[in-house]
Amino acid sequence: MEMFYSFFVFSLILSSSYAAVQDFCVADYRVPSGPAGYSCKRPENVKVNDFVYSGLGNAGNTSNIYRSVLTKASYDEVPSLNGLGISIARADLAPGGAVPLHTHPGSNEIFLLVKGKLIAGFISSDTNTVYQTTIKSGDIFVIPGGLLHFFVNIGGAEDNPVVAFASYSSSSIHVQIVDDALFKNNFPTELINRTTLLSISEIRRLKALFGGTK
Amino acid sequence: MEMFYSFFVFSLILSSSYAAVQDFCVADYRVPSGPAGYSCKRPENVKVNDFVYSGLGNAGNTSNIYRSVLTKASYDEVPSLNGLGISIARADLAPGGAVPLHTHPGSNEIFLLVKGKLIAGFISSDTNTVYQTTIKSGDIFVIPGGLLHFFVNIGGAEDNPVVAFASYSSSSIHVQIVDDALFKNNFPTELINRTTLLSISEIRRLKALFGGTK
Amino acid sequence: MEMFYSFFVFSLILSSSYAAVQDFCVADYRVPSGPAGYSCKRPENVKVNDFVYSGLGNAGNTSNIYRSVLTKASYDEVPSLNGLGISIARADLAPGGAVPLHTHPGSNEIFLLVKGKLIAGFISSDTNTVYQTTIKSGDIFVIPGGLLHFFVNIGGAEDNPVVAFASYSSSSIHVQIVDDALFKNNFPTELINRTTLLSISEIRRLKALFGGTK
Amino acid sequence: MEMFYSFFVFSLILSSSYAAVQDFCVADYRVPSGPAGYSCKRPENVKVNDFVYSGLGNAGNTSNIYRSVLTKASYDEVPSLNGLGISIARADLAPGGAVPLHTHPGSNEIFLLVKGKLIAGFISSDTNTVYQTTIKSGDIFVIPGGLLHFFVNIGGAEDNPVVAFASYSSSSIHVQIVDDALFKNNFPTELINRTTLLSISEIRRLKALFGGTK
Amino acid sequence: MEMFYSFFVFSLILSSSYAAVQDFCVADYRVPSGPAGYSCKRPENVKVNDFVYSGLGNAGNTSNIYRSVLTKASYDEVPSLNGLGISIARADLAPGGAVPLHTHPGSNEIFLLVKGKLIAGFISSDTNTVYQTTIKSGDIFVIPGGLLHFFVNIGGAEDNPVVAFASYSSSSIHVQIVDDALFKNNFPTELINRTTLLSISEIRRLKALFGGTK
Amino acid sequence: MEMFYSFFVFSLILSSSYAAVQDFCVADYRVPSGPAGYSCKRPENVKVNDFVYSGLGNAGNTSNIYRSVLTKASYDEVPSLNGLGISIARADLAPGGAVPLHTHPGSNEIFLLVKGKLIAGFISSDTNTVYQTTIKSGDIFVIPGGLLHFFVNIGGAEDNPVVAFASYSSSSIHVQIVDDALFKNNFPTELINRTTLLSISEIRRLKALFGGTK
Repeated sequence: MEMFYSFFVFSLILSSSYAAVQDFCVADYRVPSGPAGYSCKRPENVKVNDFVYSGLGNAGNTSNIYRSVLTKASYDEVPSLNGLGISIARADLAPGGAVPLHTHPGSNEIFLLVKGKLIAGFISSDTNTVYQTTIKSGDIFVIPGGLLHFFVNIGGAEDNPVVAFASYSSSSIHVQIVDDALFKNNFPTELINRTTLLSISEIRRLKALFGGTK
Repeated sequence: MEMFYSFFVFSLILSSSYAAVQDFCVADYRVPSGPAGYSCKRPENVKVNDFVYSGLGNAGNTSNIYRSVLTKASYDEVPSLNGLGISIARADLAPGGAVPLHTHPGSNEIFLLVKGKLIAGFISSDTNTVYQTTIKSGDIFVIPGGLLHFFVNIGGAEDNPVVAFASYSSSSIHVQIVDDALFKNNFPTELINRTTLLSISEIRRLKALFGGTK
Repeated sequence: MEMFYSFFVFSLILSSSYAAVQDFCVADYRVPSGPAGYSCKRPENVKVNDFVYSGLGNAGNTSNIYRSVLTKASYDEVPSLNGLGISIARADLAPGGAVPLHTHPGSNEIFLLVKGKLIAGFISSDTNTVYQTTIKSGDIFVIPGGLLHFFVNIGGAEDNPVVAFASYSSSSIHVQIVDDALFKNNFPTELINRTTLLSISEIRRLKALFGGTK
Repeated sequence: MEMFYSFFVFSLILSSSYAAVQDFCVADYRVPSGPAGYSCKRPENVKVNDFVYSGLGNAGNTSNIYRSVLTKASYDEVPSLNGLGISIARADLAPGGAVPLHTHPGSNEIFLLVKGKLIAGFISSDTNTVYQTTIKSGDIFVIPGGLLHFFVNIGGAEDNPVVAFASYSSSSIHVQIVDDALFKNNFPTELINRTTLLSISEIRRLKALFGGTK
Repeated sequence: MEMFYSFFVFSLILSSSYAAVQDFCVADYRVPSGPAGYSCKRPENVKVNDFVYSGLGNAGNTSNIYRSVLTKASYDEVPSLNGLGISIARADLAPGGAVPLHTHPGSNEIFLLVKGKLIAGFISSDTNTVYQTTIKSGDIFVIPGGLLHFFVNIGGAEDNPVVAFASYSSSSIHVQIVDDALFKNNFPTELINRTTLLSISEIRRLKALFGGTK
Repeated sequence: MEMFYSFFVFSLILSSSYAAVQDFCVADYRVPSGPAGYSCKRPENVKVNDFVYSGLGNAGNTSNIYRSVLTKASYDEVPSLNGLGISIARADLAPGGAVPLHTHPGSNEIFLLVKGKLIAGFISSDTNTVYQTTIKSGDIFVIPGGLLHFFVNIGGAEDNPVVAFASYSSSSIHVQIVDDALFKNNFPTELINRTTLLSISEIRRLKALFGGTK
């Protein structure tokens, strides 16, 4: 067994001794990633299927408190996106659902509504201006990087369920939901209170709702 | 009249003397752009409509030789995309249509097929490998930057007309179609022949088709 | 008067007809900025004082609900920072004060505590992990870009008032405070409720506290 | 033997446990590259020869259908170019030769003609404008990234053979030649026909010439 | 022993086979770095201490010829700075000390004087303009990337010892001191003379002072 | 006259109100540049001559103390290089000449020796290692950004005069020559002495040689 391990590692590393010539850097998930992404598969191991992904073809499961869900196609799901600075996700909203207030640290977004009717909005920093409007099927809505934003489903039966696709200006997709960041972990209630001025009782109510402790 | 002009220019320039504080750089199309994009509108002139665009809501006109069309939402159409490093376009293909062989100089692409059935492919540089497959509704196809690629509509009646959305990793969308670059301008026939080895007669036939001269 | 204006604009623009040769791009606040920053002053107008700034030498005014304040030295205050991808700010906290939960969209941060004792923390996206610790005078605390973070003053009399300096990996400094984004503007109470699940009564209480409407 | 392998891998990886301090990242070809380039050799293994390359000193072999050849000095040939965002190549053209229509996906180019007389040209995207001129020894010609371009040798005996050097704005050099992409692989004739409108007979003639199949 | 090594390497590499999802890339110093920095630790191994550093809390040792010292907090000392494009250092100057003429290749700098009184200056390229001024406690001084700069302690007893913090626009901190580059190595005296016109006797005097050879 | 000025400015600015679509950003030297370069000419004003430059075709004048000269082709001389991140220069050395010790703040370099024989070298920061070798016609020498480097002509009659071309990884070319930075301006002798430990008499001798004051 041990010999096999050694041989495996050796071939992984040494077989790269011929300089790689390629137009892309399809992720090799077996080695650690760096600030710019994953290491590249050797060209002869790259297949056309590395460039295709069917995971956005079906609606995600919206059985949650917000009745909405985001399904990602980032460099973690689609190896060819590694290093390309772009990714995409599918958003599904059930009737009455909403995408909770959140940010994408480090990514700009184009939100394309394929089916439905939403209130879309983001809030600028510094001046706290709310840029809010109603969008309909076929519209795009642009969300500058790192800003708090949200979507609320206001469509009738004919507009539901809502389907949208969000494109991002980076290969990874990170989502920081305000509620989850505050109430779905062990963030101490007292510190939340002191840094947000939310009341202790409200914090406790929401921690109970989201499964947070402390 | 001249006084008005002067005043206009003065106010355009001087009114920027207060430092701008903003999270975005919505394009001001009145001043020349630079390598990084257009100058920014002053924050008080930015409206939520700068972040919304409805131009992709309807199918483009596919009455052309390829029976396909690309409708762009780049920083030239959507001012809020200025400086954000992302853009999007809608592709429509009529039955039997194709997206001709082309490149996007400087942009990586995620192609999302919303309706239809296509052969999708790109060709790597250096090794000239053809990465080609069939994609169906809900699939994405990744196209690394600057490489020749194409789509051919192979769907039946139930798959048509085809609708897709392409996201790009830059704020601008440039398309270099091989045919147009060769045959839709005054590129001298002899030079085309010497740099592609296409026959003179074939070049002339295609120049006639695409409206080229010389 | 109008002649003067015209002449001014003309000289502003035409005097740039000689190619600029410089190692820096000191901001000219009179012309609109672009995605990469402000236009550059002509080299002969650049003075050593463009590279010096004394605005961080004194404590800011902490007479506010959080008993803390951030004083910025970004490319809006220091013209030589234009295009350099770095900026700095001074944070002052009165006894018992806190820096409210906030993000810096698009900037990584090094927080250097010069005097005092703080609980420092940030929350990762996706997993909602709270990275929290106590820091003392001389410590630095690193905050990855775009993530929610906070500081709470836990020092005694000998540690107060607190003085710290935060360095950022961009020329501009943007601050999105969660409370301000929610409660210090006209963000409709119902939409806040639907996208955060905060109770209507709590939202109203905080809107009253922060001066929000609707 | 197996013990040696294990030891080798261990030392390769563990010997990096001391933080590296260096001004450059000379490629270590033994480990896989990533989107930003190869891993760095440890500083003590870097030699001055990593910064010198003599491979452009002699003319390449122009015995091919185009009577021209490109010899590369990229980060695949010169390890010190890794991460530096620049590379260079030598172009040789025999009398009557041409550099076929091609692109460099992702790199801008400065072409410096050291000896000879050429027609140089590139074609813009979108408008399909041909920017074409005659250049002589000592001239440079600038080619914006990703655009189709070509060179045709029009010099007399005294101008031949042609020698030129092309500098690129990236560490790698990728070349996509239109003919090779179409005719030197297994790109199906029918798909070429549908995406370029080239006639089937012309495609077959050129596939025969370039060694393509299907 | 050898089995242990093999197992270690295997687990290091294979344990990364699950796609990493994280907002930061805390350096894993066990694998070689690349042009963009070190590989990332797996998220579950990241601790809050990776984001804290106390190494700047005490004055460095100024017992050297310049009576000054720089203490670094770069991605080599603080693993969480990996990939963040920012770093910081502490500068201490004893009475009468100076920071010798030096550059930081590739980093812009904000120098924050916390205690003391200095002459601060940098020299532009091309025009060789000296931008020089006196700064006092609380002032910042901006130094554009790659330019020669210096600090001279001119404070009285009440201003000493001097304490300052320098922030840099990159994760690494490189310092090229002119004297050290010329006189603290084996740079041949004759070559120094021919490329600087310094006299042979002066070069020899300084080589003796700094420990250089040849 | 004044009316003409006004009209000119108005048309300059307003004529940009149609969105520009182009693959390049040819510099418009009439408006101030920004951190990313000059504003772009309108596409209809771009000519093929913007992409050609003949200024490197002849040897520069080497009648100076170093018997060497650098002739630049940067975005200041070649408008199409604006925004492309690459530039080139010609170096000429007379017999016995040298390129003085200097840096290029912010640019990596490939030095291509076309004719001659040189000692080429650079000095790393931090460790002060001298990477030095002899190069001959056809060799390239790579110089990582911001590091001190030099060339000394050691060729015989058959190798002279020396001709080389240096390519840089940025659109601008900045040169900081150590001697010029120290001795060709008003850098006070006492400050030079304190920050380099060069003797007062040597500084005075060199200031006299280079034309410096103080």
